Amino acid sequence: MKAVCLLSGGLDSSTCLAYARREGFTCYALSIDYGQRHRFELEAAAKVAQSLGAAAHRTLRADLRLIGGSALTAEIEVPKHRASVEMASGIPVTYVPARNTVFLSLALAWAEVLEAASIFLGVNAIDYSGYPDCRPEFIEAFERMANLATRAGVEGKLRTRIHTPLLHLSKAEIVRLAAELGLDFSLTSSCYDPGPGGRPCGGCDSCLLRRKGFAEANLIDPLEYPAP
Amino acid sequence: MKAVCLLSGGLDSSTCLAYARREGFTCYALSIDYGQRHRFELEAAAKVAQSLGAAAHRTLRADLRLIGGSALTAEIEVPKHRASVEMASGIPVTYVPARNTVFLSLALAWAEVLEAASIFLGVNAIDYSGYPDCRPEFIEAFERMANLATRAGVEGKLRTRIHTPLLHLSKAEIVRLAAELGLDFSLTSSCYDPGPGGRPCGGCDSCLLRRKGFAEANLIDPLEYPAP
Repeated sequence: MKAVCLLSGGLDSSTCLAYARREGFTCYALSIDYGQRHRFELEAAAKVAQSLGAAAHRTLRADLRLIGGSALTAEIEVPKHRASVEMASGIPVTYVPARNTVFLSLALAWAEVLEAASIFLGVNAIDYSGYPDCRPEFIEAFERMANLATRAGVEGKLRTRIHTPLLHLSKAEIVRLAAELGLDFSLTSSCYDPGPGGRPCGGCDSCLLRRKGFAEANLIDPLEYPAP
Repeated sequence: MKAVCLLSGGLDSSTCLAYARREGFTCYALSIDYGQRHRFELEAAAKVAQSLGAAAHRTLRADLRLIGGSALTAEIEVPKHRASVEMASGIPVTYVPARNTVFLSLALAWAEVLEAASIFLGVNAIDYSGYPDCRPEFIEAFERMANLATRAGVEGKLRTRIHTPLLHLSKAEIVRLAAELGLDFSLTSSCYDPGPGGRPCGGCDSCLLRRKGFAEANLIDPLEYPAP
């Protein structure tokens, strides 16, 4: 069973890849260089893909910086040390317009060439529900569209499925699952605004959620955060 | 009214842009550099966008060559001088896996940043029905997904519409419409396998369909084809 696994190099997508491997999939890891300011995650992705035994790892360019509209691709400041209640209200400036749609489309293209019926995406609708393209109804609509978009869909040979095993897990549950799957956390990179050598800032939404997840799971995050 | 108009530089997408302009849209033309062998079309797109008064024209890179699987992006020969009956049967090797899904996703990303509710795509289901992602049911499913994918969809502010004004036109009807809209045909480029300076080969499916369309419309194609 072949699967295309979208892999940013962060905690969620790495856990998702580890999960797909355990489920017995031959995994083709796909990272997207979309002009993100946290390019360090692409290096992390390569290391994670190798350590988890992906059959292949490709990094595709799709330059969303030309489009802008997000703190991750344009000259907009990444917010730091926001309270949970702030994070939970509205769509944050780190949202990248239509990012998961673009990522899933590229994964679909590769899946079609590989004749892979499965695509794994590490989205999560619980801890960080501000992104429209992390919602279950979006995933279902994408899957439906995907089955009309491709050769396999027309010929009725293959039914494309979008797997989102982390969709309903809290960050603490993801951390526990990752530990159980043997993910090497030190290879992953979650920070939206890392310093030299990929050192996490500790204060962006992504760092805060990761730290909270480890704390609630009673596990130690091997990444070193700046002293408060 | 703002619209993102996907523009390859070929006859159909150029006609589609001209149509959107006549309908009163402020048009943001988007071309995708996906590693196509007929890169000349990107130069054509820039000229067409300018001549039709697009408000802006961007060329985004999304390197589908890393994925392959098509005569347009891999080392697979572009078929020449096929009979109409051959073209009408099955999915041709020039089909690029999930191309329209990828293109529409990138258009959706830009539309979201621009707060444009409309996306124009020059697909056609009549003369060349071999591509799965040129079918009306695909377009409908993409539109539905798009309205769940974005900020606008969540906030209920904007309903995204995918316009496909050429969907049910024959190539001859497209040529006539383009002439009526004042499209400068000499700026467009349809060939899948052009020679130096973008000179059309005359024999690929795309050239054959274009030539047939002009012939049936009783109009002269200003492009120069090699002598038979």
